[in-house]
Order: sequence, then C-alpha cells, then structure tokens
Amino acid sequence: MQMPFVFDRYRSVIDAQLKSVMAPYRSPLYDMMRYHLGWIDERGNDLTDASGKALRPTLCLLSCEATGSDIARALPAAAAVELIHNFSLIHDDIQDDDGERRHRPTVWKVWGKAQAINAGTAMKILANMSLARSSRDALPPEKQQRMLASLDDATLKLIEGQYLDIDFEQRSEIDIDDYLAMIKGKTAALIACSMELGVLSGTDDADTIQRFRDFGENLGIAFQIRDDILGIWGDPNMTGKPLGSDIRRKKKSLPVVFALSRAADRQRDAIFKMLQKEILADDDVETFLGILDDMHVRASVQEMADGYCDKARRKIREAGIEPGSRGDFEHILEFLSARNY
Amino acid sequence: MQMPFVFDRYRSVIDAQLKSVMAPYRSPLYDMMRYHLGWIDERGNDLTDASGKALRPTLCLLSCEATGSDIARALPAAAAVELIHNFSLIHDDIQDDDGERRHRPTVWKVWGKAQAINAGTAMKILANMSLARSSRDALPPEKQQRMLASLDDATLKLIEGQYLDIDFEQRSEIDIDDYLAMIKGKTAALIACSMELGVLSGTDDADTIQRFRDFGENLGIAFQIRDDILGIWGDPNMTGKPLGSDIRRKKKSLPVVFALSRAADRQRDAIFKMLQKEILADDDVETFLGILDDMHVRASVQEMADGYCDKARRKIREAGIEPGSRGDFEHILEFLSARNY
Repeated sequence: MQMPFVFDRYRSVIDAQLKSVMAPYRSPLYDMMRYHLGWIDERGNDLTDASGKALRPTLCLLSCEATGSDIARALPAAAAVELIHNFSLIHDDIQDDDGERRHRPTVWKVWGKAQAINAGTAMKILANMSLARSSRDALPPEKQQRMLASLDDATLKLIEGQYLDIDFEQRSEIDIDDYLAMIKGKTAALIACSMELGVLSGTDDADTIQRFRDFGENLGIAFQIRDDILGIWGDPNMTGKPLGSDIRRKKKSLPVVFALSRAADRQRDAIFKMLQKEILADDDVETFLGILDDMHVRASVQEMADGYCDKARRKIREAGIEPGSRGDFEHILEFLSARNY
Repeated sequence: MQMPFVFDRYRSVIDAQLKSVMAPYRSPLYDMMRYHLGWIDERGNDLTDASGKALRPTLCLLSCEATGSDIARALPAAAAVELIHNFSLIHDDIQDDDGERRHRPTVWKVWGKAQAINAGTAMKILANMSLARSSRDALPPEKQQRMLASLDDATLKLIEGQYLDIDFEQRSEIDIDDYLAMIKGKTAALIACSMELGVLSGTDDADTIQRFRDFGENLGIAFQIRDDILGIWGDPNMTGKPLGSDIRRKKKSLPVVFALSRAADRQRDAIFKMLQKEILADDDVETFLGILDDMHVRASVQEMADGYCDKARRKIREAGIEPGSRGDFEHILEFLSARNY
C-alpha cells in the first residue's frame, strides 16, 4: 500500500513553514524540539529529514484548497496543528515510558523527563504563537480569534482523551463507548480541527465547516482503529514494533476492548488474568492472540473502521467540492483505513 | 511581618473569577486542578480555601485600577496569570520530584506523574481560553490579541527559565548572570506580564506600560531572591520547609551561586565537594551554612534584593499614578522583599 501522492504535494511548504516558525528560537530548549521533529541528531548535527506523513497539516491545506482559497492563508494553521500533534507525542512518550519513536530514542530518553516536559509544553505554546503571529496580517482578527479558540479547544480535548487513555490502564471495565470517547479526544479532535482551520481560511459557511469537521472526526476514528490493529497485527518490519506489541504492553486498545465486550465468561477470565500479570511471557501473548483469532476480532474491528470511513466519505460528498479535491480526500481515506504502517 | 491589606482587597473577586472559569469543566482531569488550587481534597470533598497570596492577579488588578480603569476589565487576565502560575507549579513539582506543597501532597503524588502532566498542560490551555473568551466582549480584538501574545510570550520565558533551572543542576559553573537570566524567565516574566495585562486593560500608552512592566520585572527578581534566602535561612515554622532545605537539595540558588563566585579556592573546593555528594548529611549542611556565614552571603544577597526593590520603586514613581495606588505597590514591595514566608 503506497502512500498517496497527495502527502508529497505539500511536504516542502509544510517543512518550510515549520522551519520558519522555529527559526528565531535558538536556545537548547528548542533543540529538543528540532530533535523530536527529526531535523537534528542529539548532538545538534543536521539530519536529512526522514519525516512522517504530516497528516494533519496536509488535511488542513487540502481543506483550504478545496474551498478555492490560496493555501498560503492556511499555512500558519497547518504548522500549528503539526506542532500540537508533536507536543502531544513528546508528552505521550514520557507518560507511556516509551524509549523509542520512529527508530530513535525519544526526547525524554536523551534529555530526561523533566526537560522533555518543558520541550512539550513550550512546543504547544509555539503552535499558538505561530498561528497568532503569522495570520495576523492575512486574516481579520475575529477569524483569527476563532481559529485560536478552535485550536485550544481541540488541544484540551486531546488532553482529555490522553487522560482517559492513561486512566483505562487502571480500570478493568472499559466498554466500546468508553473507548470511542477516548479516541474522539485523543486522535479525532485535532484531525477535525485541522480540517476546520483549513476551511476557515477560505469560508465562513457553517454547513461546509461542519461537513469538513465531520469528515475529519470520522477519518480520525478510523485512523486510530487502524492504528490499534497495526499495534497488534502489524508487520514488525513495517511498523518497527514487535508482533503483538500492544498486547505485551497490555494496552486497552479496541481489539482488547472489543474482545472483552463479546467474550464468553471463560475467555473473559483468561483475558483479565493476563491483563493483571506484571509481565506477559511470549506464551501469554500467543494465547491472547489465539483468543482474538477465535473470536474473529481483527475482522470485526476492521469493519468498524470501514464504517467510520463510509461516514467520512458521505460527509465529503455532501460538501459539494470539485471532483479533484474530493478524490484527494477519498485517496487519503482509502490509504489510512488499509495502511500497513 | 504582616501581609499587606491589599492582598485581601481583591481576594474574593479573584476567587470568584477562577471558579467561574473552571465551572464548566467537570471531568476528573479538572478535579486535579481543583485539588491543586486548594478547593477540594483528594476525594473530591470541598475545602475551605486556604489560598495563598495570589500575588500575580493582585498585581494585575492593581495595575488596571492605577490607570483609572474598572477592574472588571482586567479580571479575565487576572485569572489567566494565576492559572499560568499554577500550571507551572504542577509541572515544577513533577520535575523537582517534590511530594509536598502548601502542606499537602502534590498532584503527581496523588494521581501519578503521567496524569499530573496532563493537569498542568490543560490548566495552561484554560488560562488562554479564559483570557480569550471572557475578554471577547469587553475589549477590542486587537487588544485581546496583544494580551494573548503577551501571556504566551511570558509563559514561554517561564519555561525557558525552568529549563535553565533544571540544567543548572548538572552544571558546576553558574555565575550570577546565569542565575539572573534564569529567574528573569522563571519568576519575573510572568509577574511583569501580570502588570502589563492590567495596564493594557486601561491604556495603550507605551511608556506607562513599560514602567509597569519594569516594576514587575524588578519586583519579580527581588521576590525570587527573597525566596532563595528563605529556602536556606527561613524559619521552618513559617515556610513549612526544614532549615537549610535548599542546601540539602543542592539547589543552585543565589546564595550558593554568590558564594561560589566570591569564595577563596579552599572554600570553593569544599562547596563543590558537597554539591557532588549523593546525599548531604546534617554535618555537611552545617558546614555549608558555616561557609555561607563566614562569607556574609545572606547580607550580600539581601542587598541585591533591596537593589532590585529600589529600581522597582523608581519605576512606579515615574509612572505618575495617584498616591494611593503608588502606596499599594510600595507596600507590596516592602512586604515581599522582607517577608518571612
């Protein structure tokens, strides 16, 4: 499954925008951010970017373009959502005690948790500042206020989702609704916001804004569910994580929550017993995977992802944008719901 | 040394404003904030407020009033600076591994570090949101943009200062300029911003704004130096910390930095040796305190604080405000530079 070409289209303008936002900030605090973004190594040497998909800024610029507006107007917002996403990853790695991301040591692993907290929070502030500063001349102040409010609102929802995700680790009874509430905050809110900010650069039409937001939210949910699938059944060569990784970490991701909600008593007991173990042996992981297989959890969960993709597809069709733009969004949907990495 | 009456004058409006900002947020994430603010205990039961000085919002409202403006216009800003201050305390306690604050377990001690990170960052966002939302009707959008920019700028400086403070723990050679750069960020930036936001509610005059900012910055520096003095020589009954507390923690606070900058070789070696120890015994602390006594560090450092107070006093005199307001600021100066708690 190749990444759709649309992710390359804006790559260089997004990078340039991010680099110009960061350029004035030279002290070591900001080097932690540059490291996290893959621009430098831990000694400060420049790296050739091995960047990720930049999903959120791409969606933001596509949404702006779909309304017939110049993407330059949405570039500050595109940089802002990417910085918010990355701030959340820096804190996430601390909170989950993850020592590696994208095949490199995480920020806290290099600089310690105390400083990584600073790097994350400061990056969140840079996101707001860059949105506020760069759009000051391009957009009327009321529009800018609305965009900042939307960004802060999405960030707060993201943190509420992260709160729930951590809280779930301690709780045994998580149902599918709990799970959905969590990922709507943790993943979907910022993706919906990315779409909204792009559209807002071009139009004030409430219906259009709502349809793009709805597309983003449903895409975000599907994206996270696919992420959960890859966290258990992903090819280690593609994901960089060992097989059954999320099982080993006893994460209450959708496949586990789904299995618990459908399991017969005996299977439930077996799953609970494993979730209570301090460390899962390879045998345990295999038993766990066996239960999931017996229950056809993978197919059921993928079906759920496909359902959210269908909803997203309907929303973007209703938005009445020209076929080229619509095709871009549909390619992204197809790719994200079936991706292997 | 009694707290000046001015700290009581606005106490109830500040509390009411903070409570109204927090009121819509009911999920457990926000209970961590209510706990930190002293409103509830760890089980969620209401507490009779045992609030602190609320220095920053008081300075904000005083500054607004000094320009002849209605304090209602500055209340959203006052709440915002108090929330920023408290967000930084929540993260600070995690970073310093401090288990107690104001005689209660810190947020991370009750909920764990992962969730405390969320509580702090979310509180930072609430600060911005409350400034943006509540001032939307009261102030023109350009003014509000400027206030939000000033708040974010101060918060970024605060984090830069916190970065340096943590960094100093690993570095042996810290001079007085390094120290001053650190507390200008960590402490003075938000206090200067509190003054600026108050003044901005009433006037756009650049000279007035600058004088209030300068007052705030110098007051902030003096405040932090006094804090450093109390961290070593404060009365344990007043401060709630053991005698020599910051020595025991090997903090590079001003008395230590000052001593290192003036010490003869033999004293320097003795100090360095102690800073390198894993744990300082009572004997070590006494030896350390003896060296500081021999060098008259306490008096010299207090003199530095007094110097910054004098600068602040000049700035508020130059601001040409009516004598009653000026008197309030001068009382605060006198109290903060000589306080015992």
